[in-house]
Amino acid sequence: MYNKNFKRNNAPRKNNESGNKMIFGIRAIIETIEAGHEIDKILLKKDIQSELSQELFAAVKGRNIPVVRVPVEKIDRISNNKNHQGAVAFISPVAYQRITHLIPQLYEDAKCPFIVVLDGVTDVRNFGAIARTCECAGVDAIMIPQLGSASINADAIKTSAGALLSLPVCREHNLAAMVNFLKECGLRVFAASEKATQTYTEADYAGPIALVMGSEDVGISPEILELCDEHVSIPINGNISSLNVSVAAGILIYEAVKGR
Amino acid sequence: MYNKNFKRNNAPRKNNESGNKMIFGIRAIIETIEAGHEIDKILLKKDIQSELSQELFAAVKGRNIPVVRVPVEKIDRISNNKNHQGAVAFISPVAYQRITHLIPQLYEDAKCPFIVVLDGVTDVRNFGAIARTCECAGVDAIMIPQLGSASINADAIKTSAGALLSLPVCREHNLAAMVNFLKECGLRVFAASEKATQTYTEADYAGPIALVMGSEDVGISPEILELCDEHVSIPINGNISSLNVSVAAGILIYEAVKGR
Repeated sequence: MYNKNFKRNNAPRKNNESGNKMIFGIRAIIETIEAGHEIDKILLKKDIQSELSQELFAAVKGRNIPVVRVPVEKIDRISNNKNHQGAVAFISPVAYQRITHLIPQLYEDAKCPFIVVLDGVTDVRNFGAIARTCECAGVDAIMIPQLGSASINADAIKTSAGALLSLPVCREHNLAAMVNFLKECGLRVFAASEKATQTYTEADYAGPIALVMGSEDVGISPEILELCDEHVSIPINGNISSLNVSVAAGILIYEAVKGR
Repeated sequence: MYNKNFKRNNAPRKNNESGNKMIFGIRAIIETIEAGHEIDKILLKKDIQSELSQELFAAVKGRNIPVVRVPVEKIDRISNNKNHQGAVAFISPVAYQRITHLIPQLYEDAKCPFIVVLDGVTDVRNFGAIARTCECAGVDAIMIPQLGSASINADAIKTSAGALLSLPVCREHNLAAMVNFLKECGLRVFAASEKATQTYTEADYAGPIALVMGSEDVGISPEILELCDEHVSIPINGNISSLNVSVAAGILIYEAVKGR
């Protein structure tokens, strides 16, 4: 019975929220995971306690898939009140990579890594525009946190002009740990911060580097900011205190590329 | 009768299309123009031929207000089938300036003009992000064509972080003539062009300058491109042929600011 259900649900269907394909039902989701499909996230009914839900948690374990507990009404709305058994999974249009695999690979290929870290960029169009800039500038990968980042959906891919289909994206459970990993691998980590006294043109971007951009509203989280080796700011002459994050990323990425 | 109608229609009302206030009816629109309100554009029923419509054309003459002929169904849709007499005007949330007044004023104020010209940027969010960058970088004004440019609506103002409420915007009927005017005023005009052999870091941005950015799809129009003194390109290392226009504008504007 579940298998039948799975097949029916597995057909591509548009999601109004993110444009990604969706799978309904816990069994169907487990089978999708085990078939090797990349899952963007799973929404699970808040108070679900079944044996099957334990199986789901076993399946996502170690696979870096975020599971978010939500009121059942949210899943009702997304599913148009179809039978969803308290769970919906969004299939990701891109295959995420692991930064711990990617950096050694870049060194093996005799490349000098340049990674852009997005700490909480939630606007899909900003995310897409930054990916487009990264691809144009020759950045090696984007690293994002598992939660609190823009979904890679149809809009993001369109705004990226397709960059998100070729540029490696590493989605990491513990962003701070992975920033530390970058440092251990010999990358100098730059933070874009309005408060930095060093302007972006004064820094030296030669060698392996990472550039961290913060969220649209609060910037880089204090925990990550503290880990960064250098802070750089873009001078502001007007009355508005900051640039759009995708524009700021563009200015910094191209300045770094120039110095490499 | 028309006066009554005018008062009724003159109350602020949201437009679903652009977020700007709208005025319905030719007489009401004429009175709004004569009262000195800034009109973004007027949509007029295709085949309207009344005496009143001649009065409207007399009122817009010399005022730089675009009048677009459209099928009546479009106005029906916008007005929710209210009485519109074949005409709707969108009130602009900003007061446009004239470049012919602005440049002499900048020189009088002992400023060294830096103007950004947007030749057909139609995406409201790109337009807003560029305005935000201009304000942050200390650009003196944006110049746009009367037709074929993004509407300055609530979305544009929001994306600009309010920059569009303080940064002068010059909307000009004949953009090519006004680019020539900039040259006559001693500005060197730079064109952002992917095909330019000179990269943007090689150019000298000292002195009075203008920077022309083209539309998202076809770039700068050939007529304007030919008028520009220098063409500059941003190097692309990836497979995507171009950057997002607001990101490209950010990179070029900040490079120019550095050299000034």
